Amino acid sequence: MTDLHRSPAPFSRRRLLGRAAGIAALAGAAAIAPPVALARQATPEPAAGADPLPSWNAGPLKRGIIEFVARSVDPAHEDWLPVDRRIAAFDNDGTLMAEYPMPASTSFVLDRARELVRTMPDYARDPAFAPLRDGAFDDPLNPEAPRLYLPIRKITNAGLTQQLSIAAARGWLQDAVNPADGRRWVDSAYRPMLELLALLHANDYTTFVVTGSEVDFVRAFAPEVYGIPTWRVIGTDYAYGYSAVDGRGQVTTTSQDMLNMTGPNKATAIALHVGQRPVIAVGNSDGDQQMLEYAAGGIGPSLTLMLHHTDAAREFAYDRDYPWSPFDRTLDAMPKLGFSMIDMAKDWNAVWA
Amino acid sequence: MTDLHRSPAPFSRRRLLGRAAGIAALAGAAAIAPPVALARQATPEPAAGADPLPSWNAGPLKRGIIEFVARSVDPAHEDWLPVDRRIAAFDNDGTLMAEYPMPASTSFVLDRARELVRTMPDYARDPAFAPLRDGAFDDPLNPEAPRLYLPIRKITNAGLTQQLSIAAARGWLQDAVNPADGRRWVDSAYRPMLELLALLHANDYTTFVVTGSEVDFVRAFAPEVYGIPTWRVIGTDYAYGYSAVDGRGQVTTTSQDMLNMTGPNKATAIALHVGQRPVIAVGNSDGDQQMLEYAAGGIGPSLTLMLHHTDAAREFAYDRDYPWSPFDRTLDAMPKLGFSMIDMAKDWNAVWA
Repeated sequence: MTDLHRSPAPFSRRRLLGRAAGIAALAGAAAIAPPVALARQATPEPAAGADPLPSWNAGPLKRGIIEFVARSVDPAHEDWLPVDRRIAAFDNDGTLMAEYPMPASTSFVLDRARELVRTMPDYARDPAFAPLRDGAFDDPLNPEAPRLYLPIRKITNAGLTQQLSIAAARGWLQDAVNPADGRRWVDSAYRPMLELLALLHANDYTTFVVTGSEVDFVRAFAPEVYGIPTWRVIGTDYAYGYSAVDGRGQVTTTSQDMLNMTGPNKATAIALHVGQRPVIAVGNSDGDQQMLEYAAGGIGPSLTLMLHHTDAAREFAYDRDYPWSPFDRTLDAMPKLGFSMIDMAKDWNAVWA
Repeated sequence: MTDLHRSPAPFSRRRLLGRAAGIAALAGAAAIAPPVALARQATPEPAAGADPLPSWNAGPLKRGIIEFVARSVDPAHEDWLPVDRRIAAFDNDGTLMAEYPMPASTSFVLDRARELVRTMPDYARDPAFAPLRDGAFDDPLNPEAPRLYLPIRKITNAGLTQQLSIAAARGWLQDAVNPADGRRWVDSAYRPMLELLALLHANDYTTFVVTGSEVDFVRAFAPEVYGIPTWRVIGTDYAYGYSAVDGRGQVTTTSQDMLNMTGPNKATAIALHVGQRPVIAVGNSDGDQQMLEYAAGGIGPSLTLMLHHTDAAREFAYDRDYPWSPFDRTLDAMPKLGFSMIDMAKDWNAVWA
């Protein structure tokens, strides 16, 4: 053993100017800027003794949810769970917030792609972007759109530090509305689901969002809209790349090997990121089936819920034919799977937060 | 839209017996069994006004750590950080707990490999296990050992549900001791580091373990020994596989594509799992350099610490020649990198928890 180096100071204030300052300043700026308010509150706090799920209509579904949670926190009940086993996993698009006729993240990526095409000749020439120019996304329900979207998504998300990636999403979310109803995306979370999150948080559950959307897009609003911090958002990722200059490192999104967070990937990602099997899982499409199966696969009770979009009056009515994320084969299999259905039109007396 | 299926009950108690009950019972048992106590306490709580780091000797290093934390939680100070930016990342082996002469996880995997070879003829015939029979690991400091270990590691970790994988580690950790000093591994955490974790937790920092060891091995003891839940442990993983029978899912470790959580992988994994750049990073080997660089790469102050094992009397003295995880090139680069060194012999007045 040799050379016990000691740096002169026990910590270092990083200079704002320097060799790597250009990119570092950009990368850090988003992280230290005061956050822009996207939503007025995270999850509503029910008064003690009050109905914790006022937007849910009375019935066996609502009673079952409340009793499941109550039993799991009652040390005298055989279904009691220690705090570290109180894990709940929620899909995002169509489960916690609206996704019709096109998920917010998809709309964001397409807006960014249009900007890239407009400003960068290389991108304008890339054949991956041809469908954008050819109007493939003018009808958001074009059945071919998801297939044509994949290469655009991969290229468009690449080349940003994670901090800038989140900042770009936050900027877009300030004004972005769902064209179908004119509602801001950050106001498009479902009130009954925010109540359910609040009920779980009040009972020491640890909640996770497990989303097919870009992970850093959902991280841009999950803390404010759901009360869920960035490290409890699991999503489609970008095979981040690493680079460093003079001891200062950057992590940057790349266009390689994007892992689409859907289907079995949701279950294995929960194992990788959470390290516990959830006891509650909530989704709304075929891509959520395995996440719910995983929650149902342990010993002891589980709560597995699928939201069915049945409410054309207050939201949208769709399932099998929704091209971005259909509820089709899993809908057929529901009785065999044993999941519980949330019928939006019947089970919720309010939809919007 | 058609076929509004509703399952009869809003949630389902899973039967203990059934078609998939054999494997499910095994998989679930570990998760619901009352946890076996591995350690008496997580992190010690200092009394208000007391020295938060009593095992650290007075000096600029200790003062610098305490002042860094104090400034970051002082709303009147320019270095104040909102709670969601108070992120600290710790390596495990050699940083939070002893790793010499062989990390606990390596010793665990080799013990399991010996058991597999003894009981399963297929494994005994596998050439990957030949070095085990040939005594390659009898000297834990054999420079060839890490290379010969890799294929053993991959095969040995495969084929368990995550719950059983964690349970196997917990069982082993009950009695397992470091042969070099006879100390139980779960008692081999460093008291000064537990004090640092406690200081950070008391100041609303969110801590993460980012480890080259198998993620589920460290998850087996991190909650009790460090006060860090399983979802804040990032480590070497197994490319989990998914399977389901009758709506009940299992996630199982495989022998494919193990991602070794070291070097740049630590920085990119923090981006993937945490979604925030850490402001504090603590390590002890070349494999931690990029994690510390990433913490140092933002705007604003950062605290980047490397522990140097200089204490042959109370622990072990090693760095460049330690085959499992050398502190060598990064040791040479320390002055240029700007990281702070913790000299165990000089900076700590107590080592063990």
